[in-house]
Amino acid sequence: MATSPFDIGVVGLGVMGANLGLNLASRGARVAGYNHSRGKADAFTARAAAELDRPDQAQGTDDLNAFIVSLTRPRIVLLMVPAGVVDDAIAQISPHLQAGDIVIDGGNSHFPDTERRLSTLAGQDLHFIGMGVSGGETGARFGPSMMPGGEAAAWKHVRPLLEPAAAIAPDGAPCVSWMGSGGAGHFVKMVHNGIEYALMQQIAEIYDLLHRGAGYDHADLHRLFAEWNEGTLAGYLIEITADILQQPDDSGSGLLLDKIRDAAGQKGTGRWTSEAAFELGVPTPAIDAAVTARGLSDLYAARQTAAGMLPGPATVAPSASLAKQAAAALEAGMLIAYTQGMHLIAEAAEAKGYGTSLDTVARIWRGGCIIRAALLDDLAAAYVSPPLMGNPLFDETLSARLGKLEGGLRTIVTQGAIGGIPMPALAAALAYYDGLRSRRLPANLIQAQRDYFGAHTYERLDKPGIFHTHWGTGAIPTDG
Amino acid sequence: MATSPFDIGVVGLGVMGANLGLNLASRGARVAGYNHSRGKADAFTARAAAELDRPDQAQGTDDLNAFIVSLTRPRIVLLMVPAGVVDDAIAQISPHLQAGDIVIDGGNSHFPDTERRLSTLAGQDLHFIGMGVSGGETGARFGPSMMPGGEAAAWKHVRPLLEPAAAIAPDGAPCVSWMGSGGAGHFVKMVHNGIEYALMQQIAEIYDLLHRGAGYDHADLHRLFAEWNEGTLAGYLIEITADILQQPDDSGSGLLLDKIRDAAGQKGTGRWTSEAAFELGVPTPAIDAAVTARGLSDLYAARQTAAGMLPGPATVAPSASLAKQAAAALEAGMLIAYTQGMHLIAEAAEAKGYGTSLDTVARIWRGGCIIRAALLDDLAAAYVSPPLMGNPLFDETLSARLGKLEGGLRTIVTQGAIGGIPMPALAAALAYYDGLRSRRLPANLIQAQRDYFGAHTYERLDKPGIFHTHWGTGAIPTDG
Repeated sequence: MATSPFDIGVVGLGVMGANLGLNLASRGARVAGYNHSRGKADAFTARAAAELDRPDQAQGTDDLNAFIVSLTRPRIVLLMVPAGVVDDAIAQISPHLQAGDIVIDGGNSHFPDTERRLSTLAGQDLHFIGMGVSGGETGARFGPSMMPGGEAAAWKHVRPLLEPAAAIAPDGAPCVSWMGSGGAGHFVKMVHNGIEYALMQQIAEIYDLLHRGAGYDHADLHRLFAEWNEGTLAGYLIEITADILQQPDDSGSGLLLDKIRDAAGQKGTGRWTSEAAFELGVPTPAIDAAVTARGLSDLYAARQTAAGMLPGPATVAPSASLAKQAAAALEAGMLIAYTQGMHLIAEAAEAKGYGTSLDTVARIWRGGCIIRAALLDDLAAAYVSPPLMGNPLFDETLSARLGKLEGGLRTIVTQGAIGGIPMPALAAALAYYDGLRSRRLPANLIQAQRDYFGAHTYERLDKPGIFHTHWGTGAIPTDG
Repeated sequence: MATSPFDIGVVGLGVMGANLGLNLASRGARVAGYNHSRGKADAFTARAAAELDRPDQAQGTDDLNAFIVSLTRPRIVLLMVPAGVVDDAIAQISPHLQAGDIVIDGGNSHFPDTERRLSTLAGQDLHFIGMGVSGGETGARFGPSMMPGGEAAAWKHVRPLLEPAAAIAPDGAPCVSWMGSGGAGHFVKMVHNGIEYALMQQIAEIYDLLHRGAGYDHADLHRLFAEWNEGTLAGYLIEITADILQQPDDSGSGLLLDKIRDAAGQKGTGRWTSEAAFELGVPTPAIDAAVTARGLSDLYAARQTAAGMLPGPATVAPSASLAKQAAAALEAGMLIAYTQGMHLIAEAAEAKGYGTSLDTVARIWRGGCIIRAALLDDLAAAYVSPPLMGNPLFDETLSARLGKLEGGLRTIVTQGAIGGIPMPALAAALAYYDGLRSRRLPANLIQAQRDYFGAHTYERLDKPGIFHTHWGTGAIPTDG
């Protein structure tokens, strides 16, 4: 190792760790890399020599002791290791650290694990940060969105290193900020992924309705998504969908998309968002439906059988306005998916005392990450003054925007239902919208049923208290 | 205590425990009751004297030692205590028991707790059974549906006591049977509750569409539900809904239903089903949507605000066929909700090695429990030969039945979407139906997106293997 001290050490030099390390180094930090594999350590040094203006900004080693002593105090150790070995890595590194040193977990850890590790390391006088990183391999190298949270005292040491390496939002702000205490960083990243699931599913539903249902060909759809990406729908997932819709199949003829097996697993992090939402009692049905839709797609063999047994239509009548309504439906559905996710973060921040700034969350998602989209400007603005009930739908700009889109969402969900094209995430978004704006919902009947069979009691609209009725003995009331 | 030995001991003489104890005693078992409160113990003895033909069949005590020694070997101790104190009760009782004695937890425990307790007690040579009990307080007293699972060696001792006390299905079979090993009993009961959530929500949605949307009055709706309860929709929840729709408000004028606050919590056991489904990757979207709809209803203050901010319709055009289509939609939605729950049980039984007999599950739900309904006969029949892919929708009778109903479900979901009446659970059921019968779903686009931004790879339809593409470099293919 060089004798000059390093600002930050990266443990784990796989693609994500090496890329993020080189990114940090290219932005001015002096970066030590550690990997127990000599090959990966040397490859990191070689990439630094090849990719950096000043090659000595980054250097790899397989010597843990040398790695540790090469770091300035307080040492900052960024773990970029698979989720399954984070505890092992911490156990290996932490005995070498001293009070006040900082450990950052930059992997996709589940927030309860982050909270446990924070507590464990605090007992050793070490500062722990759980940091979500979005943007994939390319983002890690050239500018990811980063969501750090945990021990606030560590932020001032870490911030000068991370800010230059982060993606830049359209207004020039770096896409990294402090998400709050505890597991806030990984919680926010988890919800980011949940929203990502919902957006991807909604895009897929619109694609399915227009292609399988209404017969739009892929060239039409490429032009449509490319056009949408120039307007209010603009965002990374719309952009790459346009690309995908013109990607040829290099191993044959036609479009690659047509050759890809239509089965998507959900064993990953997406379901964590739904589980957290169920746990906290926050409705995120568009996200839940997207997770479940992947599970259904994965019943591949069953679907081939069912296609021959379960009758129904699979055609949508094309109309001159269908594409325009599809765009409105998609924009409404996406807005609703973001607000469900933001509402979950707001409730978690309240319940867990994270102290998360909601507009900051929306702002750092505007660049670098998978769910970056133009509409995040409105979403961030909705949180500058805290929105009613923690729900950004109640912002005047957003509610007015949705008001112009909701008709399109109705039309598209209807077309799917009549035409036999499943639209679980868009239908869930519409039902959420209509439920939220319902002054009365039929939950009074549910409460009556619960009291009927289980003596669960109910509240009344006209007076306070808890009531129970001996049901089933009434006559038909004369007023209907 | 009487010196004559008792067949079974009930620990916890609250309403459920006392009622189930008296039920067992009225069907021939000699029942000892224990409660640490002398008052509850004496009340149990007094109720036995008042309600039983042979009062000495049941007797309460607050003396734990006397209670234990009064039981025949192997002792059978049925815990009927709140979920939060099951571990305490076990810790208190088990030191008094001997190898081969049997402990039954008849409460609403979460299945992982049951599996943990089973393992702990097995280490003490005690047999543990986790048993779901459905039917509320009345069911406990006069015939519940009971779902025991755990240590199979104990079943032969318990069965002769439980069978006479269980509800009787329409064909005369007792509504209790062995659900399998491990936590199977409480798992099946949990799914029962998840299905219950879905059915209640679907009924509420139909009520809302017809009442708030289309202007049906409560007298119309009472007649409609009463009529439906005479046909293929017949079931307990339909029956009590008809009752609720004619229950006057004793503390005022009009219908009690109109006075009940429309906010239903979901902190209970319902979300466990969705969480288990997410964990196992089994799609149960109608159940998930029902849980989430309760959460949304509970955002009561937010809804009052949103009603003034978020525009949209709230009217459904009445038509001559609307009620008929509503019945079809409800029957289709309910069938789909049951099949989603059964599919979850099938997958859990496979994953956890429960050895659950699926047709037995459907059969013991035909009486005593909240979700008892005529359509369970078809559902049970679908499992006599194992259905394709574990999904009862692929049974010829059920798929043909659904084929006649799916048009009504489409119409009603469409009416809700156009009319602004939220139908999350029915829409989720329709999307599931249409997704399952889709030979191709747009999950290929999702897989392409995942490979584009995260190099997650994909499979192809035309050849085996795992593939990755460097996306975004393609030209527009000439064939569109």
